[in-house]
Amino acid sequence: MREFDLLNHIYKWNTRLDPRVLIGPGDDMALVEMHGRRLLAAVDQLVDGQHVRVATTPIELVGRKAIARSLSDIAAMAGNPLATLVAATLPPDFGNERANALFDAMRETAERYRAPLIGGDLAFHFTPSHPLACSVTVLAEPSVPAADGPRAIPRSGAHVGDVVCVTGTLGGSLQPDGLGRHLTFEPRIDLAIQIGETLGDRLRAMIDISDGLGRDASHIAELSNVQIRLDADSIPCNPDCNWRRALSDGEDYELCFTAAPPVPDEIAGNRIYKVGNVTARGPQEPLVVVKHGVEFLSADDLGWQHKSEGGQ
Amino acid sequence: MREFDLLNHIYKWNTRLDPRVLIGPGDDMALVEMHGRRLLAAVDQLVDGQHVRVATTPIELVGRKAIARSLSDIAAMAGNPLATLVAATLPPDFGNERANALFDAMRETAERYRAPLIGGDLAFHFTPSHPLACSVTVLAEPSVPAADGPRAIPRSGAHVGDVVCVTGTLGGSLQPDGLGRHLTFEPRIDLAIQIGETLGDRLRAMIDISDGLGRDASHIAELSNVQIRLDADSIPCNPDCNWRRALSDGEDYELCFTAAPPVPDEIAGNRIYKVGNVTARGPQEPLVVVKHGVEFLSADDLGWQHKSEGGQ
Repeated sequence: MREFDLLNHIYKWNTRLDPRVLIGPGDDMALVEMHGRRLLAAVDQLVDGQHVRVATTPIELVGRKAIARSLSDIAAMAGNPLATLVAATLPPDFGNERANALFDAMRETAERYRAPLIGGDLAFHFTPSHPLACSVTVLAEPSVPAADGPRAIPRSGAHVGDVVCVTGTLGGSLQPDGLGRHLTFEPRIDLAIQIGETLGDRLRAMIDISDGLGRDASHIAELSNVQIRLDADSIPCNPDCNWRRALSDGEDYELCFTAAPPVPDEIAGNRIYKVGNVTARGPQEPLVVVKHGVEFLSADDLGWQHKSEGGQ
Repeated sequence: MREFDLLNHIYKWNTRLDPRVLIGPGDDMALVEMHGRRLLAAVDQLVDGQHVRVATTPIELVGRKAIARSLSDIAAMAGNPLATLVAATLPPDFGNERANALFDAMRETAERYRAPLIGGDLAFHFTPSHPLACSVTVLAEPSVPAADGPRAIPRSGAHVGDVVCVTGTLGGSLQPDGLGRHLTFEPRIDLAIQIGETLGDRLRAMIDISDGLGRDASHIAELSNVQIRLDADSIPCNPDCNWRRALSDGEDYELCFTAAPPVPDEIAGNRIYKVGNVTARGPQEPLVVVKHGVEFLSADDLGWQHKSEGGQ
């Protein structure tokens, strides 16, 4: 069984969810109604060997990443951080000092982004070969001004005619091993809130780029029932990365959003890169196509059809 | 390093927490303020070999327990359930059918107690020997009527003169292996809310009995800075259990609370057992003493001084 099948098994529950659940599993965070206030909540986990290599990474950066990738989910919904909870399973020989350093890094990262660590649970594995696993829950409140109270930005809101934008340069985040940008990125929480303030109702759909712009744009396209056309020449690439890597490497933790035009070239001092547009999608058409010169390439052509890694 | 040391390392953060955090780590759930509403949140985990034996337990009961022990934390605060999130790490050979059955049992248990499953994350271990681990976050709203809005019941509220009560019979929950009450108990969510409605301001402190009444009463005594005196003859025991086992076996998931008298013998059709009272505690005195005939026994005498298992 692959993870994706099981997630689909979970997502089908959406149809019979409690009426308090406004956005269910399948987006970056769920949204629930609680007597007049709305709450965003999500859980994600970091597992040694899958999302980080503990043996070659400073332990402070392991703790930082465990929290920061969940905070990036708050940014993806344009949420205002509220709190963080962590459950960790550690190898029995992990050591006092490293366990403290791991938790201190998690706490400091959570506090720095206004999501104080309010709960923790710990368990130890029996044998040293078992991997470190940290499960991180983040809570937030919607921030984007709207007539009936602040709203969150889902993956499912893209409209035909929207501009597709990203908030920074992409690709190469996993290099070098143990020190790449996937360990040191800044979750775009404040920028997401500023984008919401600037664009208001025109901000339609958003996601954080964890799987790679290609796959993450396809998540928006699928849930919004549209096609996203990306322009290879417009994709902002990190040094030593071409557009193919910028589309597929992943773990950039920049934001990809769609908005009704016009979208300014800069929001709160941050460059906004316009990388494509939203069009109608026919029954057999791909979710995402990439225009490169005179060619139109689909996900299948580019080899990033299948999701390789976890994430809510 | 033992878990308890690390939890103490986490708890010391309390002193510098965000002002939105009304109850921090160390209680059954944390309480945070969100612009006029209050939210309870906690995370707990279930690890194969520590909290359950997957090899000898029907998978439906594994999923049920993973959720039910977190729901019991909601009961311990007299919370009204809001939502549940689950992160699970499964052995790679866990199998399609069992993974679905596990998640269905978790979803059904969460829904039955009005805490719909709104988020999930999955990761697979690389080698089959690695244990199943489920991390469960629960969210709730305080329910007990109070002048400035509904309040939650902390561990720290016990007063000298309070009566100490439990909601059901104790002991023997772990037998027989794979079928004991620790797998089938009903989290006391509705009863906790009814106790709060009945006693109002007189309901002072509450905890769910997971570590055993002796240890759990000591958590109340420590955080409330009082002594709890239990009367061995008053402790309601399950069949085949004496008062010593009723005090120490644990995993009963009944509630222990303290309240200003009078406390009725029955609330909403449930028997309330009065098992002791709250007194002042001198500097060198034990947190909990048990009166048995003419003897007063301390935790040290009874061998349950040290916490053996996890839990927030």
